Amino acid sequence: MIKVSIIGAGNVAQHLITVLKTAENIELIQVFARNKNSLSTLDTITIVSSFDDLEEVDVYIIAVTDNAIATVANQIPFTNKLVVHTSGSVAITELNSKNRKGVFYPLQTFSKSKEVNFKEIPICLETETEADYAVLETIAKSISDKVYKIDSQQRKALHVAAVFVNNFVNHLYQIGNEICTENNIPFEILKPLILETAQKIMTLSPKEAQTGPGKRLDLMTLSSHLDFLEDKNRNKIYDILTNSIIENGNKL
Amino acid sequence: MIKVSIIGAGNVAQHLITVLKTAENIELIQVFARNKNSLSTLDTITIVSSFDDLEEVDVYIIAVTDNAIATVANQIPFTNKLVVHTSGSVAITELNSKNRKGVFYPLQTFSKSKEVNFKEIPICLETETEADYAVLETIAKSISDKVYKIDSQQRKALHVAAVFVNNFVNHLYQIGNEICTENNIPFEILKPLILETAQKIMTLSPKEAQTGPGKRLDLMTLSSHLDFLEDKNRNKIYDILTNSIIENGNKL
Repeated sequence: MIKVSIIGAGNVAQHLITVLKTAENIELIQVFARNKNSLSTLDTITIVSSFDDLEEVDVYIIAVTDNAIATVANQIPFTNKLVVHTSGSVAITELNSKNRKGVFYPLQTFSKSKEVNFKEIPICLETETEADYAVLETIAKSISDKVYKIDSQQRKALHVAAVFVNNFVNHLYQIGNEICTENNIPFEILKPLILETAQKIMTLSPKEAQTGPGKRLDLMTLSSHLDFLEDKNRNKIYDILTNSIIENGNKL
Repeated sequence: MIKVSIIGAGNVAQHLITVLKTAENIELIQVFARNKNSLSTLDTITIVSSFDDLEEVDVYIIAVTDNAIATVANQIPFTNKLVVHTSGSVAITELNSKNRKGVFYPLQTFSKSKEVNFKEIPICLETETEADYAVLETIAKSISDKVYKIDSQQRKALHVAAVFVNNFVNHLYQIGNEICTENNIPFEILKPLILETAQKIMTLSPKEAQTGPGKRLDLMTLSSHLDFLEDKNRNKIYDILTNSIIENGNKL
């Protein structure tokens, strides 16, 4: 059994606690949360609020906000333990050198109110040694079918790519939602299209899947859409994404 | 039985032929295709290539490219028939007034190579009279569970919204794909995130679902991502979408 403790009480921490509590080969020893109440539902786990109360375990998983990772790593009162963070955008070198460093980055969008199937979540691992990699791999494989070795430079690229396909995509959903609301159209109408757009690229490449007035250089529709978009910001987004699709077609 | 003929041989036409061939209450009489070979697999349907060979039916569905709709409508050698087009961006008034006009707009992204479940596809209807609406509604309900009354102005808004949530979203998938490829990361890693991002807004509003460095005003991550994006075009897209997310947060 690999003994693990989790530091943090946010979305990622809570999802990791839930899944690691019942994972094979893993013994979840403690959870550190500054405010015990934020984790009150997890009554079968020992929650501590002081670093002095942390027990010695094999792996400490720091699942806190990016800016706090270094500070938390400094406060772990042990040396030569495997200490990992869960962030997409923080380099492994931000962790304190008194311990062995690693990254355990589950690439998914977590909401407190929505359950996720961890088996489907890719977990991106990085360590300084092969031995530590084997430890993290055992933990990762106990909760997910998709485990990848990703170094800090790749993880940065991956995080940027994730911002495009998750944060920016969701923002475009919101603009679609607003346009519907303003025109008394139920947003429900767009939902099958949204799902199909995502499902389509499970089998086709995004390049193959591209359709629309930009792709087919339908200048009449493009100009009528730009006329329709009175909101300056939406107009600008429409224009720049359309031009990017057109340039992309010309790159062929 | 409502007698229907389809004019066109593209993606939308082919999907409509497949589903209408076996639909209850519908008799698919003919398909008009300039080039018979483009429809050669549909051997149980009569294909004609001259407007003179068109038989009289109740409803003609024009499923051709936007620019050709008016020309095709002019060439139908009958009067006072119900003639509808399937386009999201063409007004009902573009159809020839010698026939009764309507729109039968299935809101989905169709690829020849990918089957779709028509039951889940919203069909947006518009007619000039209640009687014609009843006819289109019967056809639409025989193939889909989701039928909506949408006028030309709303359909235009819907089409613009669809460009945001489908064409633009797919283009962001492509940028994510390219960033992965350039950094030797399998694009597979992003696919669960892409699916979850779409599935999330089936239960949460996009506004509630928004996460990421723009949403939480994480200026350090934002500036490090902009540094990472050497491609001028991607940099511009990142910048404008991030600013839109930030402004949006301030609107609260």
